[in-house]
Amino acid sequence: MADPSPPKQMASEPLGPATDQHVVATAIVAIEPADAEARVSATAELDRKVKPVASLGRLEDIAVRIAGIRGTAVLPPPTPAVVVCAADHGIAAQGVSAYPQAVTAQMLRTFADGGAAVCVLARQAGARLLVADIGVLQPPGETGPKAGVLDRRVRAGTADTSHGPAMSTAQAQQAVRIGVDLAGDLAADGVDLVAVGEMGIANSTTASAVTAALLNVAPERVCGRGTGLDDDQLAHKIATVRRILARHSNHGRTPMDVLARLGGLEIAALAGVMLGCAARRIPVVLDGFITGAAALVAARLAPYSVDAMIAGHRSTEPGHALQLADLGLDPLLDLQLRLGEGSGAALAIPLIRAAIAVLSDMATFESAGLSDREAAR
Amino acid sequence: MADPSPPKQMASEPLGPATDQHVVATAIVAIEPADAEARVSATAELDRKVKPVASLGRLEDIAVRIAGIRGTAVLPPPTPAVVVCAADHGIAAQGVSAYPQAVTAQMLRTFADGGAAVCVLARQAGARLLVADIGVLQPPGETGPKAGVLDRRVRAGTADTSHGPAMSTAQAQQAVRIGVDLAGDLAADGVDLVAVGEMGIANSTTASAVTAALLNVAPERVCGRGTGLDDDQLAHKIATVRRILARHSNHGRTPMDVLARLGGLEIAALAGVMLGCAARRIPVVLDGFITGAAALVAARLAPYSVDAMIAGHRSTEPGHALQLADLGLDPLLDLQLRLGEGSGAALAIPLIRAAIAVLSDMATFESAGLSDREAAR
Repeated sequence: MADPSPPKQMASEPLGPATDQHVVATAIVAIEPADAEARVSATAELDRKVKPVASLGRLEDIAVRIAGIRGTAVLPPPTPAVVVCAADHGIAAQGVSAYPQAVTAQMLRTFADGGAAVCVLARQAGARLLVADIGVLQPPGETGPKAGVLDRRVRAGTADTSHGPAMSTAQAQQAVRIGVDLAGDLAADGVDLVAVGEMGIANSTTASAVTAALLNVAPERVCGRGTGLDDDQLAHKIATVRRILARHSNHGRTPMDVLARLGGLEIAALAGVMLGCAARRIPVVLDGFITGAAALVAARLAPYSVDAMIAGHRSTEPGHALQLADLGLDPLLDLQLRLGEGSGAALAIPLIRAAIAVLSDMATFESAGLSDREAAR
Repeated sequence: MADPSPPKQMASEPLGPATDQHVVATAIVAIEPADAEARVSATAELDRKVKPVASLGRLEDIAVRIAGIRGTAVLPPPTPAVVVCAADHGIAAQGVSAYPQAVTAQMLRTFADGGAAVCVLARQAGARLLVADIGVLQPPGETGPKAGVLDRRVRAGTADTSHGPAMSTAQAQQAVRIGVDLAGDLAADGVDLVAVGEMGIANSTTASAVTAALLNVAPERVCGRGTGLDDDQLAHKIATVRRILARHSNHGRTPMDVLARLGGLEIAALAGVMLGCAARRIPVVLDGFITGAAALVAARLAPYSVDAMIAGHRSTEPGHALQLADLGLDPLLDLQLRLGEGSGAALAIPLIRAAIAVLSDMATFESAGLSDREAAR
């Protein structure tokens, strides 16, 4: 039989009022590697199912991975959520995006109205959608939980990183902590599968800088066309990332330094969501290049957090492949998406649901009364 | 606005009792190419959505394709079904499968009991499952609609094609007609999206022979390990397919000749399902190599039937790539599945559902009150 023990609990909260740093550190120390015993149980159970061994390919890998994250091979149908973090980027002033910065706030309203792609895809996946404003430049008029966008604003967008730090270290800590707390709120609501997404005009430039810094690779290997740059615009983006990296080259390279200097309020918050989920043994489904940058940060802060990650889709951004190679992840989907918002992560949810159902619901050779199991090997 | 006209109806039924040949021919002549106008409408509508143009990649391609098949860009949420056709293969006597032939009938019972992989995956996809016995060697004891398996038996398995024809031409016609009728029954029940699958020990050898014959390629380019052959067994399978092709080389090569001589009762029925769906403008989601062989037959009988096909997943069988290249299809999923049963086709249903929802449910720049559409171009 598979291991029936429930997922392990997170370490208890501190006694006094928690500082941002303390909350983040508490999450980080709570993160354990995948449960090897649960993985073995899940593999053994899958091998008993009425099918040739391993014939469901990556679906079986995912089921085993989820068992390892959850710490048990007895998995109920998942209760998924899609978490979208949004913020603005001072680097937009350098003309690195095909869109005006006001689009970030406009898209937040579209998220609240339910008409954006991720709204449609989350509904299709049977997932609740949680959108958090971590620091959009102009807050959308009707934010607040009622309007469907959580107000978790740290500041009104980051500063231009080609001139100085994106934010203070305290603000970076605060943004990460916000993500950890969002994961805690979702866990308290019974969510046990979290897909992540983002919105922020110019954030592929920020993600390129963060990725180049953390992986120590040249900007031209990382930068892509985002949601629609031509050749000249791409060259300008690469030059801009080179300037950003040069501007900050004499400063610290801890993950928190990189977040504070190169920025991304939503990237910081998403790293926090990943840490908070990993600490609670909740699988996190990554989207594309921006969430991949957040995953790199989380992986640097807590290497075992990667055990809780599942790559939802393969982005067309060149830096995404570098991120995935570093994280050791292989995406479930390759649909040439280049939208962000969590669209690729949301689309992966039904596959993960199916993987869990295969483990939970399929008949075994024994339960089906079949005698040919040995012939199947 | 998108074209609101309903999908076109099939030609009316003949007046007298229809022969198998007449039913099949009626389906074939009813098959039209994809509706170019509906495709244009769907593309225009997708370009109005609140996202960069074409940023949802293959999801948008699928939405446009479905619009072309249905003949309208106004698509309700789909009502999907998974159709699994099962039969036995005389060629199993040549020792080409890792499994005893009795497994076909055993798996039919597991389908009826709801414990097989495709049962789980169809449930996850919100699709009804229809399993039809087209000619299993020993009929499962409790078949019939009540037990969840339709009795559509043409004969008790095919003959050994290394010695002679698999079946008579009349039987091949009958099996194809059964598939056409199954599609008609589903359409009458309101099904508007059909995923196909199969079960039949040794049917990857049959599918290899059919594929090699229709594509005129050497057996070694087509044959794979099926659900679990080692190197020696694979060499034997290739040699067996070579013998089959040599045995029938002096005979006709019409699609119906190939079906009758090289066989596959379930392959014939699946070709019929594809023709019946295409005639009713119902999209058909292909599974792997076996359904690919049926698709080649359908494509040879009615070239425009390919317009109704969507490739669900990429099989690990080498011949599958040849089939896809011939059909001009690119699979949605690549999950290293090698099970069959329709597992890969069933897994693609949520993606297709999502593609339709994007077309139907997403806000447009206009409906969202956004003014930056031109900037997005």
